[in-house]
Amino acid sequence: MPRHVPLTLDDFGSFAVGGRIVTVEGAEVRHVQLSTDLPTYRVDPNGTYHVEHAYVQYFVPHGGSGLPVVLVHGGGLTGACWETTPDDRPGWLHYFLHHGRTTFVVDGVERGRSGWCSLPGVWDEHTGPFLRSDQEAWDIFRIGPLDKFNDQETFPGSRFPIDHVENLARQQVPRWTTTQGLSVAALCELIRRVGPCVLIGHSQGGGIAAHAASTVPEQVAAVVLLEPHGLPPVEAFASVASLPQMVLAGDYLDQTEMYQHLAKTWHEYVAGLGAQGHHVTYATLPAMGITGNSHMLMMDDNSDQVAGLVATWLDEQVAPGSMY
Amino acid sequence: MPRHVPLTLDDFGSFAVGGRIVTVEGAEVRHVQLSTDLPTYRVDPNGTYHVEHAYVQYFVPHGGSGLPVVLVHGGGLTGACWETTPDDRPGWLHYFLHHGRTTFVVDGVERGRSGWCSLPGVWDEHTGPFLRSDQEAWDIFRIGPLDKFNDQETFPGSRFPIDHVENLARQQVPRWTTTQGLSVAALCELIRRVGPCVLIGHSQGGGIAAHAASTVPEQVAAVVLLEPHGLPPVEAFASVASLPQMVLAGDYLDQTEMYQHLAKTWHEYVAGLGAQGHHVTYATLPAMGITGNSHMLMMDDNSDQVAGLVATWLDEQVAPGSMY
Repeated sequence: MPRHVPLTLDDFGSFAVGGRIVTVEGAEVRHVQLSTDLPTYRVDPNGTYHVEHAYVQYFVPHGGSGLPVVLVHGGGLTGACWETTPDDRPGWLHYFLHHGRTTFVVDGVERGRSGWCSLPGVWDEHTGPFLRSDQEAWDIFRIGPLDKFNDQETFPGSRFPIDHVENLARQQVPRWTTTQGLSVAALCELIRRVGPCVLIGHSQGGGIAAHAASTVPEQVAAVVLLEPHGLPPVEAFASVASLPQMVLAGDYLDQTEMYQHLAKTWHEYVAGLGAQGHHVTYATLPAMGITGNSHMLMMDDNSDQVAGLVATWLDEQVAPGSMY
Repeated sequence: MPRHVPLTLDDFGSFAVGGRIVTVEGAEVRHVQLSTDLPTYRVDPNGTYHVEHAYVQYFVPHGGSGLPVVLVHGGGLTGACWETTPDDRPGWLHYFLHHGRTTFVVDGVERGRSGWCSLPGVWDEHTGPFLRSDQEAWDIFRIGPLDKFNDQETFPGSRFPIDHVENLARQQVPRWTTTQGLSVAALCELIRRVGPCVLIGHSQGGGIAAHAASTVPEQVAAVVLLEPHGLPPVEAFASVASLPQMVLAGDYLDQTEMYQHLAKTWHEYVAGLGAQGHHVTYATLPAMGITGNSHMLMMDDNSDQVAGLVATWLDEQVAPGSMY
């Protein structure tokens, strides 16, 4: 996509979905200095707090059609990962808007503009917050062999924009490992609000999207899972009429133990759903002749090509206006 | 502004500015369960981390003109506060885009999509993270008398969209009290990248904007401070040629001790800058015949009217194209 393509929006903005109210009682009053020019401010921590909601930013392209797209980011990231690639190209958000789809970008519970619950004792402090090091990102995002991190030597033929890897690092935020259920609940609320839609989830967001789809299947027309983890058991879809799902993966899956394991779970998931009669597709990009993709498919130098494959699959599954 | 006004954008997206790299050494390896379908993941916390940058979302309206606007949110909030009001009206971001201004929305360091530093010992754990209770928000945002919180009885004539106050609550995120310098540094980086621009800062963001303006005054054409705190001493502008600044405040300032004190600091700031020959304006909305505004001027039911006053003042200070 050229850098500057004018886009007319009928509307855009943001809202919060889901969450709950937590009440704090019996906590000690403290005094804090908010600014040098303010007297000490008396803070009474007792009271009510809104927590565990999700922030959603939406964009409605003028003259668009087709079901809305909901983009669900992966672990340690926020909705920003869909906006602009590390090397400053338009991200998948732009792709789907130019494709005419109203697009919702979620910040998962605990991430980004959703905020997180810093109240003592509400979230399990042993399971987060964790920030991801550059070395871990290099490994888990499949940019290159871990022992080549210091040399920044990627896997041969890698399409990740390695010269701008610091911009991926700066998209990372602290995460917990035990909040998946909270993100699923908020996503279900979003789906109920949006109505019929398609879900695209990446990595941890794939698991979250699949769980949400199994919870409110009547509103979900199709699900795209980009190298997902945390998937529900296929039994979750046993009573669902028919829900097309696509699992899409990049290159170098055989290079780490984790991805060897994950590829097996994707096979099993798709096979299990297929046995239930669901229309499912498992595709690796190399099997389609496209090599060099990392875990960050939406950031690699062929990100628009991969978005195009996803859009085509979605268009094939969902007849225009079929669920309106 | 009507709910749906099509807007054509030449470009939009996001990027990160500022920050630094922190190295962790000698930390213990741990094992975490990222998902039910993943083997235990070995996390080596040792390595490098990108922290203290700021996330910036930008929008370039088609056919726009005039200097870009940088919106700097207040304490405990994120850039989301400019997008959509709690009662789902277009926020100031929309106003300035329709006014033809390229607009940059910052998430301050530690907030929203900027993420925050969860590495032990890097940030002072005694100064945050603090989450704001509904009761504290009611008081500090000047929605109503604290003892009327339970009845949700606002100040008489309040323009705050009280029926949707929960959407303000859900925009709040944990904050520290000692990270102002980090946010100022990131904002200075943004200003250097953007070039000549005008700054609009709210509350803590007003102090941050004023500090940044005094650091890179050659790139800042004008500053609007909405009920600011944490302002620099006026001496910071002693060697600056001429920098128009406006302090704008709402109603009910006499209702709490904190705002009585703050109003005094605004008077002193403006008087001190005026004595240096700067073009400064101090305006309360009631003095202009507009009553009922809370601390959240950009969310009150006359938010577009207030934005209009700001835009008019900016247009008067900055001749179109004067700094290009």
